[in-house]
Amino acid sequence: MVLAQDCLSELRDLLGPLGCKEGADLPSRNRTDWSFLPPASPLAVLRPATTGEVVHIMRHCHANQITVTPQGGLTGLCGGARPTDGGVALSLERLTGIEDLDPVGMTMTVRAGTPLETVQKAAAEVGLFFPLDLGARGSCTIGGNLSTNAGGNRVIRYGMTRDLVLGIEAVLADGTLLPMLNRMIKNNAGYDLKQLFLGSEGTLGVITRVVLRLYPQPGCTSAALCIVPDYETVLSVLGAARKRLGPLLSAFEVMWADYWHQATDRAGIRAPVAMGKGSHAILIEMQGLDSEIDGTRFDSLLEHLLEEGLVLNGAVAQSLSDITAFWATRDAAAEFANPAVIGPHISFDVGLPVARMDEFARQAKAELLDQLGCHSVFYGHVGDGNLHVVAWKPDADPQPLDAASGIVYRIVGEMDGTVSAEHGIGTLKKPYLPLSRSPSEIALMRQVKQALDPQGLLNPTKIFD
Amino acid sequence: MVLAQDCLSELRDLLGPLGCKEGADLPSRNRTDWSFLPPASPLAVLRPATTGEVVHIMRHCHANQITVTPQGGLTGLCGGARPTDGGVALSLERLTGIEDLDPVGMTMTVRAGTPLETVQKAAAEVGLFFPLDLGARGSCTIGGNLSTNAGGNRVIRYGMTRDLVLGIEAVLADGTLLPMLNRMIKNNAGYDLKQLFLGSEGTLGVITRVVLRLYPQPGCTSAALCIVPDYETVLSVLGAARKRLGPLLSAFEVMWADYWHQATDRAGIRAPVAMGKGSHAILIEMQGLDSEIDGTRFDSLLEHLLEEGLVLNGAVAQSLSDITAFWATRDAAAEFANPAVIGPHISFDVGLPVARMDEFARQAKAELLDQLGCHSVFYGHVGDGNLHVVAWKPDADPQPLDAASGIVYRIVGEMDGTVSAEHGIGTLKKPYLPLSRSPSEIALMRQVKQALDPQGLLNPTKIFD
Repeated sequence: MVLAQDCLSELRDLLGPLGCKEGADLPSRNRTDWSFLPPASPLAVLRPATTGEVVHIMRHCHANQITVTPQGGLTGLCGGARPTDGGVALSLERLTGIEDLDPVGMTMTVRAGTPLETVQKAAAEVGLFFPLDLGARGSCTIGGNLSTNAGGNRVIRYGMTRDLVLGIEAVLADGTLLPMLNRMIKNNAGYDLKQLFLGSEGTLGVITRVVLRLYPQPGCTSAALCIVPDYETVLSVLGAARKRLGPLLSAFEVMWADYWHQATDRAGIRAPVAMGKGSHAILIEMQGLDSEIDGTRFDSLLEHLLEEGLVLNGAVAQSLSDITAFWATRDAAAEFANPAVIGPHISFDVGLPVARMDEFARQAKAELLDQLGCHSVFYGHVGDGNLHVVAWKPDADPQPLDAASGIVYRIVGEMDGTVSAEHGIGTLKKPYLPLSRSPSEIALMRQVKQALDPQGLLNPTKIFD
Repeated sequence: MVLAQDCLSELRDLLGPLGCKEGADLPSRNRTDWSFLPPASPLAVLRPATTGEVVHIMRHCHANQITVTPQGGLTGLCGGARPTDGGVALSLERLTGIEDLDPVGMTMTVRAGTPLETVQKAAAEVGLFFPLDLGARGSCTIGGNLSTNAGGNRVIRYGMTRDLVLGIEAVLADGTLLPMLNRMIKNNAGYDLKQLFLGSEGTLGVITRVVLRLYPQPGCTSAALCIVPDYETVLSVLGAARKRLGPLLSAFEVMWADYWHQATDRAGIRAPVAMGKGSHAILIEMQGLDSEIDGTRFDSLLEHLLEEGLVLNGAVAQSLSDITAFWATRDAAAEFANPAVIGPHISFDVGLPVARMDEFARQAKAELLDQLGCHSVFYGHVGDGNLHVVAWKPDADPQPLDAASGIVYRIVGEMDGTVSAEHGIGTLKKPYLPLSRSPSEIALMRQVKQALDPQGLLNPTKIFD
C-alpha cells in the first residue's frame, strides 16, 4: 500500500488549489462541526465542483484505501461531519446551484452544497414554498439536510426532510454513480434506493444532487400563545387543533413552565402572556391559504378552547411582529449559553410517544436533580413527539455530560422513545444507540454498511462501530 | 440436502392443519394473484397465526433451502405474490387484528394480515382517519399494502403508503426478528431500516406487524367535474386548485376525452356534464374540515376558474350521491373488460413528469394505432404524475401485450417516467425495469438483496433476476 499522503497527488492535480486544501491551507472550520468535539487532523479537505470530480475522488480513495468524511454546512450537533485523522474531508461547498425549477411539477433540482436558505428563496421567487426550516438555514446545506434527515419547525405539517425528497444523485464508496433524479411522487419501479442515503449521515454514499418537492406558498399565518393548567389539557388542545386546523396546523410547540421562566425571567424575552399558575405554554401556528377564510377558522378554534375552559390565559397574534415575538419565547434556548442566563449546559433532543412526554419530563427532572444536582427545563415540538431537554449543574466545569446522558437516555429507552429525534447519532450519541434500537437492528445496519461500503471508507466511526 | 417435501413435517406439526395446507387442501386462490398469470404449484401454503410462527417458518425454510413467497390479499396486478413451483407460499391471512389504537399519538398497531377496510373502519370508530384507499380495500391486506407501497386515490394529499407508516416488525430470510415498532414521527436514531421493506414486494423480509399514522377525520367533502379545452388548461386548473385548496386538495383526476367517451357512451355511466368540444374532464375533490368555512373556499376556486375562462362546462356536487356519480366516471375502467364495452384489453400504470403527460398520451396513442392497430384511452391521477393507459386491438386473441408494452414503456423511458407508478414490478414488469432504472441502480438492488437474503430464498424471481 502506498502512503496515503502521496496518494493525494493525483487528486491535487485534478482538483487544483481551490479543490484541494492541505497543510497550512486546510481551513480550520472543516476540522470539526458544531458538536464541540475537538478539531481533527485530516490529510486534506477536498472540494469538488462537479459530480464527476466526486466520482473521481471516491474511485481514487477507494483504490488507495483513504477514508472519506462528507461535509455540508458543518452545522450538525453530534459530530457526524467531523473528519477522521489521516482521512480526507469531502466538502460539497463548491457543488452549489439550482439546476432546474419546474413550477408545474413543483420540483427543484439542486446541487448538494446549496445552502437551505438559497433553496427557500428560489422557491419563493416563483411563488412556491420549500417547507424545511431550521435555525441554521443560512449555513446548512441541502445535502447535509438530506444526509441527516433534518426535522425543524414544520414537521407536523410537512414531515421530515425524507418526505420532501423525490430523487437524488449519489456516489457510492467505490465511485459508482447512482443517477436517481426521479421527479415523480409515485414511482414503484423496484427498490426505493434513495431511502438508504437519507438519514444515514454520509456513511453509505455521497449525495451530490437532489430533486426536492415544492408546495404552494402559504397565503397567511395565524398564531396564538395559550397557557394551560396541566399536560392533560395540552393533549386536549392538541386534539382540538388537529381536528379544527387539519393539515393547516403548522406548529404546535410546548414550553414547560420551568423553561418559560428561564426564557422570560432570565433570558429577558418579553412574555406575551403571563404563565401565572399554568403548567405549560403552547404556541399554535396555522399556515392558511386565505386570511379571511382561514382567519375565521383560527378564531373558531380559539373560541372553542375558551368555551371549553381549556386555556387559563392566552394571546393571539395581531401582526407579523406578534408572531415573531411569540416565536422568540420558543427560540430563547439559543440564549441559554449566556452565563447571565444558564451558562454551560447539556442539551438533549429525544423523542417520545406524545402521551408520555410529561411523565418523562417529571421523571428525568427528578433524577437529574436527585442524582446529579442538575437543574433541567423542557420544551419541544409536542405535535411531533420531539422533546428538548436543557440540563445544567450550577458552577460545574465540565458539566456532567455522561452521567446526565445516562439518566436521560435510560428513561427514554424505558418509555420506547428515541435517543435522537432529529439530530442524528454521529459519534456523540453512539453509546446510546442500543437504548433505541435492538441488537438485530444494529446488526442489520452493519450488514447494509458492509454491502455498500465493504472497506468501511465512508465516514468511518459514525452511528455504530 | 433433504428433499423439501419431507422438510415440511416439522412445520406441519408446528402449524397444525389450519396453518399448513398441502395437496388437495391447498387453496387454489393462493396459487396466483390478480395478475392473470397461470396458477403455480407450491409445496404448501403456510398460514402462521403469530409472529413467532413466522420466525419459526423462516428459520426452518432457511435451514432447508426452501423458497418462500409472502402473500397478503393476493390483489396485486404484477405477479408479486404468485408463489414458485416447489417453494412455499407464506400467507399472512391468519395474522390479523388491531393490537393498539392510540388516539393521542394518532397511531394504530396492526397485524399484517388485517384487511385495509378493517383498518379504515377501526380508525373511523374513534373519529380518526386512515387515508390509504383503493378499490381492493375489502380484500387487500395492510401487509400487502406496505410491501407494495400502495398508492390509491388520495396520494396527492396524504402520500403513498410509505408516508403513512411509522414502524414495522419484520422477519428476515434467516428468521431474524426486527422489532421496529416505532410510534414517533421523528426518529433519527440510526438507519431507517423499515424503508428497506416498504415497496420491496416481499423480497427482503416478511412484514408481520405495522404501526400506522392516523389523521383527523375530514369534516366535509366537496367535488366538481370540469371540462377544459386543452392540457395547458388542465395544468392551469391544477395550479389554481393547489394554490386555493392547499393541503385540502384530496384528488385531481383527469380523464382524456377518449376515455370519457368509453366511460359514458360505451360503459353507460351517466355523464354528469357534457364533454362537447372539450379535451379533458377533471374531477377535483377537496376534503375540508368545516363545511361552511371550506365550502366558501371551494366555491371561490370554482368562481375563479369561471372568471378566468378556464372551464368550458362544469358541475358541482350538491350531495354525497353527486360525489359518488362523479367518481363513477373515474371508476368506469372496471367495466372495460365487459365485451359490450371494450372486452379484452391491456392496462398500464405508468408515471410521468406532470408537464409531459399529454405529450406522452398523444405519442403512445399514435404509435399503438400505427404500429399495432391498437386503440387506446388515457386517464389518471394527474396531480401525482400517475397515468393509466387502456389499449386494445379489436378482435385480437391474445391481445398484443408484449408489443404494446414495448411501445408504451419505451416512450415512458424516453420521457424520464416510470414503468410502474403504483403497481410494482413483480414478474410481469421485470423486463421493463431497465427503462426506468440505470444499470448501477439495479446492481445496487442486487447488492442489497444479497446482503439481506444471500441464499435468495425470499420471493425469488421477483423485481429483478
